[in-house]
Amino acid sequence: MSLVNVNTLGGNYPIRIAPKMLQQIATSVPENASSVVIISNTTVMPLYGEQVQQSLQGIHKPIYTLVLPDGESFKTLETLNTIYTFLLRHKVDRKAVIIALGGGVIGDMAGYAAASYMRGIRFIQVPTTLLAQVDSSVGGKTAVNHPLGKNMIGAFYQPIAVDIDIDVLHTLPSREVSAGLAEVIKYGMIMDADFFAWCERHVEQLRALAPEIISYAIQRSCELKAYVVEQDEKESGLRAILNLGHTFGHAIETALGYGTWLHGEAVGCGMVQAAELSAQLLGFPRESVERIRALVKAIGCPTIAPDLGMDKWISLMQVDKKSEAGQIKFVLLNRIGEATISTAPIDAIEAVLARTVER
Amino acid sequence: MSLVNVNTLGGNYPIRIAPKMLQQIATSVPENASSVVIISNTTVMPLYGEQVQQSLQGIHKPIYTLVLPDGESFKTLETLNTIYTFLLRHKVDRKAVIIALGGGVIGDMAGYAAASYMRGIRFIQVPTTLLAQVDSSVGGKTAVNHPLGKNMIGAFYQPIAVDIDIDVLHTLPSREVSAGLAEVIKYGMIMDADFFAWCERHVEQLRALAPEIISYAIQRSCELKAYVVEQDEKESGLRAILNLGHTFGHAIETALGYGTWLHGEAVGCGMVQAAELSAQLLGFPRESVERIRALVKAIGCPTIAPDLGMDKWISLMQVDKKSEAGQIKFVLLNRIGEATISTAPIDAIEAVLARTVER
Repeated sequence: MSLVNVNTLGGNYPIRIAPKMLQQIATSVPENASSVVIISNTTVMPLYGEQVQQSLQGIHKPIYTLVLPDGESFKTLETLNTIYTFLLRHKVDRKAVIIALGGGVIGDMAGYAAASYMRGIRFIQVPTTLLAQVDSSVGGKTAVNHPLGKNMIGAFYQPIAVDIDIDVLHTLPSREVSAGLAEVIKYGMIMDADFFAWCERHVEQLRALAPEIISYAIQRSCELKAYVVEQDEKESGLRAILNLGHTFGHAIETALGYGTWLHGEAVGCGMVQAAELSAQLLGFPRESVERIRALVKAIGCPTIAPDLGMDKWISLMQVDKKSEAGQIKFVLLNRIGEATISTAPIDAIEAVLARTVER
Repeated sequence: MSLVNVNTLGGNYPIRIAPKMLQQIATSVPENASSVVIISNTTVMPLYGEQVQQSLQGIHKPIYTLVLPDGESFKTLETLNTIYTFLLRHKVDRKAVIIALGGGVIGDMAGYAAASYMRGIRFIQVPTTLLAQVDSSVGGKTAVNHPLGKNMIGAFYQPIAVDIDIDVLHTLPSREVSAGLAEVIKYGMIMDADFFAWCERHVEQLRALAPEIISYAIQRSCELKAYVVEQDEKESGLRAILNLGHTFGHAIETALGYGTWLHGEAVGCGMVQAAELSAQLLGFPRESVERIRALVKAIGCPTIAPDLGMDKWISLMQVDKKSEAGQIKFVLLNRIGEATISTAPIDAIEAVLARTVER
């Protein structure tokens, strides 16, 4: 088992990474838990629900299971209200523990339900997609979407444990593996050039989910993310570098409707666009732009953005949470392994869009 | 001006109490605020909106004003969504500051909007009811109601300042003054017998809002509340004593529909019921029960509860956030000035209900 410890003001917790981890979930439930609430979706529950429920049998606590519809389009205040109603109907109390069993949508939404139900109850992240395992399950960002913007309603709220089973990745569609790898290579791009080069060398084994290779990629991603989160839990500074590619990416997701492109696909494409903007503004080497474009392509993500129209691109990017007084902020690269945050003049953004959108 | 400082893990902030405080609101807005959003309601805004807006003119920042319908029945996820939509439409960013101008409903709801919008932006409490001034604006509890329970969705989230103008109390209906005084005398009951006796001696001036008397009552209430919140920000122990009378009171509010009885009225009656239960279980002196009943009556609150039917009383109290595994917990009194928390056998609860509900 690989172990990564996360230490934040909001709490300290272990990330455990191993095969067959689902069978050990019960060991993460505190003894004083009054009940356990599994929140999952219609895709994941039939595949992995039984393993989790069986693991929990041994601790003799009431277990409630809520199965939500699958997809980013359900990551809404309405679904959140469905969760609250379920918890209240079952008289779930403050000493209960929520288990978020699913991908990023389930993790974000069940996590935010845990953050806000009775002003906060404990929860455990059990991410079942690669994207959630390397990104959203770690660091305590929870949220739901609003029709006018992604993740606009939420909280910084840390789980009490993150349990990652690498076996579950084998039922993941290959598009989702690609989307998860986008976040993996992101960590190399923003803070670890050696890891980026390692990803370039192992791209075939990563896509094939070779156990030792994918396990190391998850562990290294979690370590790098934990380091950033420990420095800046509430995103007042450093943490924003984790959003490389997200300003462009969120615009794509919002414009096309959440879920048309996978989050990781939008971020993959957005990282190519951010690299281009870095070249334009900071003299980021063209050769590095091309390495990034090649690796994003090699992991199976799109490198050409949809044509949203220039005005829509700009106005969608202005709603980004990093924006201040209408100024769009971008995570840019000085070189591979080193990120910086900067505003960008409109003409530079337009030039990059002209180069990177479909024609 | 009276000043009370609150020091919590979630932030340190001043409570300022004075006449004409509304005209000084601008001095609480940090220099780096990108904009100011006033959230108020249809009752308070016409009375006091202009004073606040005028004070803010001087700092030359964009000001947005959202006026919500008045009443506890609007303290819902739907109204919360109205706030989010307003903030997003105006492209309000993370550096904005929300001013909650109104009573407890506005404070709880605007506070929770601040806690959850973009995972948290700054806010200032400007409470305009006595109840909000002595209770809900201090301590960082924010929430909205759910049809199945009061304040079930929320966060512990501290404001950056609380500005209390005692002049605004003169437009308050006398029922609301009474409801606010219920929380004032509560502090005496749970932790300051001298203050309880002071309230008994000054009950006429309190109801008449004599400036020096009401000012001291607010200051002492805020001091006592701040002390409790500093010991236990997230209600894992001591803080629960602030809920004296609330287990009974919430059941009344839920059963009659929020807003039929004012929150303070329900708490006032609930404190008499909690005193009776204390006598039944802990040997709390009958003479003290009668002092409490007399003072609750003297401040103008009801001392006889509505007849909800025994089963409904019990099941509504089980949803209380203090409940664990279906066991109802009560804040009880050992003596005036000293509270304790305890479960109670059903037959004792039923005996108290039989004595205290309308027949």
